[in-house]
Amino acid sequence: MFKKVLVANRGEIAVQIIRALHDMDIAAVAVYSSADQDSLFVSLADEAIKIGGPQPSESYLNMAEIISVANLTGCEAIHPGYGFLSENAEFAALCEECHIKFIGPNSDVIKLMGDKSNARFAMQKAGVPVIPGSDGVVSDVSTAKQIADKIGYPILLKSAAGGGGKGIRRVDKDADLESAFLSTQQEARISYNDDDIYVEKLLTHTKHIEMQVIADNFGNVVYLPERDCSLQRNHQKVIEESPCALISPEERQYLGDIVTKAAKSLKYTNTGTFEFLMDQDHNFYFMEMNTRLQVEHTITEEVTGIELIKAMVLVANNDELPFNQDKAALKGYAIECRLNAENPYQGFVPQPGKIDHLYLPDGTLGVRFDSGIVQGSFISPFYDSMIAKVIVHLDDRQTAVNKMKRVLSELEIGGVTTNQDFLTVIINSDGFTSGEFDTGYLENRILKHQEVANGTR
Amino acid sequence: MFKKVLVANRGEIAVQIIRALHDMDIAAVAVYSSADQDSLFVSLADEAIKIGGPQPSESYLNMAEIISVANLTGCEAIHPGYGFLSENAEFAALCEECHIKFIGPNSDVIKLMGDKSNARFAMQKAGVPVIPGSDGVVSDVSTAKQIADKIGYPILLKSAAGGGGKGIRRVDKDADLESAFLSTQQEARISYNDDDIYVEKLLTHTKHIEMQVIADNFGNVVYLPERDCSLQRNHQKVIEESPCALISPEERQYLGDIVTKAAKSLKYTNTGTFEFLMDQDHNFYFMEMNTRLQVEHTITEEVTGIELIKAMVLVANNDELPFNQDKAALKGYAIECRLNAENPYQGFVPQPGKIDHLYLPDGTLGVRFDSGIVQGSFISPFYDSMIAKVIVHLDDRQTAVNKMKRVLSELEIGGVTTNQDFLTVIINSDGFTSGEFDTGYLENRILKHQEVANGTR
Repeated sequence: MFKKVLVANRGEIAVQIIRALHDMDIAAVAVYSSADQDSLFVSLADEAIKIGGPQPSESYLNMAEIISVANLTGCEAIHPGYGFLSENAEFAALCEECHIKFIGPNSDVIKLMGDKSNARFAMQKAGVPVIPGSDGVVSDVSTAKQIADKIGYPILLKSAAGGGGKGIRRVDKDADLESAFLSTQQEARISYNDDDIYVEKLLTHTKHIEMQVIADNFGNVVYLPERDCSLQRNHQKVIEESPCALISPEERQYLGDIVTKAAKSLKYTNTGTFEFLMDQDHNFYFMEMNTRLQVEHTITEEVTGIELIKAMVLVANNDELPFNQDKAALKGYAIECRLNAENPYQGFVPQPGKIDHLYLPDGTLGVRFDSGIVQGSFISPFYDSMIAKVIVHLDDRQTAVNKMKRVLSELEIGGVTTNQDFLTVIINSDGFTSGEFDTGYLENRILKHQEVANGTR
Repeated sequence: MFKKVLVANRGEIAVQIIRALHDMDIAAVAVYSSADQDSLFVSLADEAIKIGGPQPSESYLNMAEIISVANLTGCEAIHPGYGFLSENAEFAALCEECHIKFIGPNSDVIKLMGDKSNARFAMQKAGVPVIPGSDGVVSDVSTAKQIADKIGYPILLKSAAGGGGKGIRRVDKDADLESAFLSTQQEARISYNDDDIYVEKLLTHTKHIEMQVIADNFGNVVYLPERDCSLQRNHQKVIEESPCALISPEERQYLGDIVTKAAKSLKYTNTGTFEFLMDQDHNFYFMEMNTRLQVEHTITEEVTGIELIKAMVLVANNDELPFNQDKAALKGYAIECRLNAENPYQGFVPQPGKIDHLYLPDGTLGVRFDSGIVQGSFISPFYDSMIAKVIVHLDDRQTAVNKMKRVLSELEIGGVTTNQDFLTVIINSDGFTSGEFDTGYLENRILKHQEVANGTR
């Protein structure tokens, strides 16, 4: 087993990776920016090396610097966490070249699935249902028109290199297609230096359903129960749950078979997540794959009892998976709320500042807080505003929801404004209670309500 | 369902009861002494009434005052927690008379099992193996001698009304019996105003194994996986685990059948725990019954997924148990460490004071802290020194032990001395690792080690 591993991340996920390493008796080396020198993850690491300034490009995205710290400190592997370099094929390849194990899939599959058009095509070949649209890149307007006529409007024009809501345009009718095509192309060229465009049907009233797999180097693939991540604002997940309240055991099995087959066709190793849209008739369409650990892996750990960071380390160490598909059977119901330092009453603007009071109400069965903060922590303006994940896991959805309501009501954070009230409004809303929410629920229903704007419940 | 329940306790257990009530949408009324007015449980309650001074007799043992607060605030039931009035048959009877539901078994069975000699006899009648000894009270020395000759020395002379190590004498040989009998009788008369004495064989190299049951008013009895509570100092449990590392599924089933039969013979309702000694040949001997929730119920919640305080409330409300024996099947391995404000290097003397720094390292799968403290809390000299329960629950014992080691190493408490290092020494000791420890392990092995006295690991 590895003796020492570098953690190429910060905040809460760096904390949890360091803990997983310590639970496995592996030493953890942290790298940190000048903005993070007083952070919890720095103090928990066995060694911590400052690698640059607060801008990500100077530190957490600084590949050369991270690799040289790994060499300097004698690390045999690097865990990239999520965000930053976690889906960067170039970094994974650089680790491979330097004989440092990248704890994740190999660089080829990261690269393949990082191009959305190629990923879609690869999944189609593997028999995975994809959103109706073009077979790969569309080079001109007339081809786009033919496809749109075939699949029907509304459609989306998407940049193959895009992500996070950029390089995407909705087109509702034939007359709008040409100008939309040209402007999407131009935006893609400017944003990504790559004007490849593909066409997809715009599905409405869909749920975002995703399924994570973990695979070793010996051909074993285990799929994990699905997560419903439909509660999003501005393409950012806000609340996730596992399982999805509306999905049957048969549908879970169906999705599981699909992602297992897909992972095998990709010769995928380590962990990754297949994201789907589910329409109102419960048809599933592949959307994209995240070739890394996700923020919401916590709820999957809860409902399966599998510690996923540990499993990633084992696979990277070339161990066989220590569990089989039976172990991944669903046990109960888990919900995660992302607690962000942001102001819901001012357009969710991030709220950097010092946490001068913190009470995380742990206690009783099924409550978990994954965070990187302590009382006195400073929330930096340079990074993501997520400061803690509030997780509950109980036997059934109703019990889990009640527990989450109570935990949110006891939680105390002083010094920075957070989305605590916003989370409470969502959890108490009818759409959440019924489980019938779709990906538009937060923006179309919750955020339009006067009561949310006023912060009343 | 009850609308409002009074919590007749303080500290961490009051906090967890209030939370369970809130999870069930029941209002919680706290009663508190003048020493506890700034406590977490007081601030979490929907109403909180000061009932007297810091001495337990003035407040948490003040039956009349507690009953009148229940009446005044319109509470339909009282949860007594553990300690204080939780095994007081007179208080349970008083509640019954006042038409306030006592959340626990009925007063008759509390009374019966509260007398150790009667309890032993009742269990013997129900077919439960008891420690060899007298059939009930022994009135004279010559009868005691006959019994001792039959069961063999060493024996224990025990006061029927005794408890907590008082009114007990070990006798190793015939010649010592007469004087020991007379002095035990005298001590019992002075301590308990009751000189009833009974005889038991002294078993050595035993484990303390206990099994909790929960029963409703409709004849349903469910037993819960055993706990190994052998790690004790001065008759106080320090670390508990479930299941016992040395007990087989067949032995679990055997014990489960015994306690189920015993509970049925007692027409027992609500929750209670049968305590056994297990000798080196895995013979089990009934020791006593606790007719209440125990501190260590947490590990049972973890390995079964059953929330026991909620189940107690349901039973008290005359609901059927919402689960059956299958639900109580063992799932994984849980360990609890009791974190006490005490100084292990000065005879474990309690350490009242202000907690000026507190970091409970929650996060990652299977970590739980049940506590009644926050940063700034004052640990009162008037009450038990336990300030938090550190609980881990993972798939297997080794993983749970590793997690507990790491959690204890991250835990930070400033302002008061605690037994954190002592817990760490135990968890890292060979006897703990092997699971082979007996009830004498802490006092005979750990506490005699120079390294413990010095606080080194």
